[in-house]
Amino acid sequence: MALLIASGPIKPEPFAEGLSSMGNALDVRVWPETGDVTDIRYALAWKPPEGMLATLPNLEVIFSVGAGVDHLLTQSGLPDVPLVRFVDPNLTMRMSEYVCLHVLTHHRRMLDYAENKKQKIWKEWEKQPAANELRVGVMGLGVLGLDAVEKLKIMGYQVAGWSRSQKQINGVDCFAGEKGQKPFLARTDILVCLLPHTAGTEGMLNTELISGLAKDGPLPGPVLINAGRGKVQVEADILDALDSDTLWAASLDVFENEPLSAKSQLWAHPRVIITPHNASISDDQAVCRYVADQIARYENGDALENVVDLKQGY
Amino acid sequence: MALLIASGPIKPEPFAEGLSSMGNALDVRVWPETGDVTDIRYALAWKPPEGMLATLPNLEVIFSVGAGVDHLLTQSGLPDVPLVRFVDPNLTMRMSEYVCLHVLTHHRRMLDYAENKKQKIWKEWEKQPAANELRVGVMGLGVLGLDAVEKLKIMGYQVAGWSRSQKQINGVDCFAGEKGQKPFLARTDILVCLLPHTAGTEGMLNTELISGLAKDGPLPGPVLINAGRGKVQVEADILDALDSDTLWAASLDVFENEPLSAKSQLWAHPRVIITPHNASISDDQAVCRYVADQIARYENGDALENVVDLKQGY
Repeated sequence: MALLIASGPIKPEPFAEGLSSMGNALDVRVWPETGDVTDIRYALAWKPPEGMLATLPNLEVIFSVGAGVDHLLTQSGLPDVPLVRFVDPNLTMRMSEYVCLHVLTHHRRMLDYAENKKQKIWKEWEKQPAANELRVGVMGLGVLGLDAVEKLKIMGYQVAGWSRSQKQINGVDCFAGEKGQKPFLARTDILVCLLPHTAGTEGMLNTELISGLAKDGPLPGPVLINAGRGKVQVEADILDALDSDTLWAASLDVFENEPLSAKSQLWAHPRVIITPHNASISDDQAVCRYVADQIARYENGDALENVVDLKQGY
Repeated sequence: MALLIASGPIKPEPFAEGLSSMGNALDVRVWPETGDVTDIRYALAWKPPEGMLATLPNLEVIFSVGAGVDHLLTQSGLPDVPLVRFVDPNLTMRMSEYVCLHVLTHHRRMLDYAENKKQKIWKEWEKQPAANELRVGVMGLGVLGLDAVEKLKIMGYQVAGWSRSQKQINGVDCFAGEKGQKPFLARTDILVCLLPHTAGTEGMLNTELISGLAKDGPLPGPVLINAGRGKVQVEADILDALDSDTLWAASLDVFENEPLSAKSQLWAHPRVIITPHNASISDDQAVCRYVADQIARYENGDALENVVDLKQGY
């Protein structure tokens, strides 16, 4: 049985070496060296060449290198086989690092202190709230969102969550669907978006949504943190909101188009923190272990885990 | 019974109002309006005028506005009465916010990403470790240190602690005393100092100590975070260590002399984060509740809590 790696901009060698050393009988190939394509039953993909997966006649399972699968769902002629997302404690840990870091950064006004440092100003911002005076709202309550919620709670924040369908989380106000969005936003000082890119979420972080965030919080204004997908945000609206004081600050790890163009006004905006879509990078070897495990399950007749619901898009 | 507030640079009114409204029979006075000093049995102090406490003949208990008491221990003729530190969940929460924020900031290379943003550079630093690949070491395992350790553990870090006397903490390697210092430092990538200023800790964060930190960690070099007391650090040594790549980066909330002089080279150093001694600011009303509680205990014949050991200095 053969597995084909097509990892786009990500180096394939660590995956090839990792999967070859897992002690199973996997014949690991790296695109474009496919060999006989009829041998290929598994693909490990990240932004593969357009239409390539459709050329594999005996493909049985596609594995995504990351938690997001939008890069696959937009492929023309995506084979009708199970599509498995990468879910791993390492990936989850890294995302929660990002979320806690950026919530704390804005809560503790680190952009202001960096500016003071430049000017050699020793000044404490008045009325610094404690974590339990701040209301953080997390949009997207999958594996990543749930872990972020738990860690934010432990830091002391008042945490609420929003998701498409209703969830129950101990100690967390859970809002759901279109109806739950307004009250969720109205009680949120710092909004963390971990939503996938789907038809339903595209352009969701726009002027209307941002205007709905709490205006009575203990910070100078609401904060937006997006570590989900860039297509969920409308960057022109975020810039407008920042410049009209509807939004106080933002941390963005993802962008409408990546890499972010040097022409984007986000780069020079003093109240925006930019990271290059690395909030949570899949660890090579964790991906290999995960794929090998899932293949072993599948070969053994057990159900694959974390199969994407193609209708929902995640 | 009268209580005298002498809170130095901190506004006394919120304490006066808070304590007056606690419903006990406390006659609250604000220095220098002492009235008849023989009435005064309690003092709430922060950097009080030199020698002032010695002029109160019937003083029974001194309360410190903060967790640190070095500002009192250096007073001439400090009355030989119990000295009570401020210990409060709010103060603890704030310190752990600071610790987690600065550990995450250096771990996730936010100084480098801020620099990239200035230059509009989209670049991911290679081999970003996950939290569980980084070894954080916390010096000082009192109430604040213990909470920081627990929260760092939950974020995923490998956490060790060092204290003067041996402690036992579940899931944490505890080192103690002079003998334990070398092995503690040798396994530490990010050092968090929460030590009080005592004769034993003065100047402890010097060239020798910094040189002992781990050289084989996954970051470009070791990191120092000091939110304890400024007199514990030797700023000239920290600057030397940064410039000789013995130290990769530092977050300093406290300084040898505060406010930090505009002449200090720390301000302009690109790998130093400066905050104006506000890692954990006592909440006015929490101080009032705490002092009222302790006075109620004392009047009731119960033991005061968090009494400072004058020999140890904390």
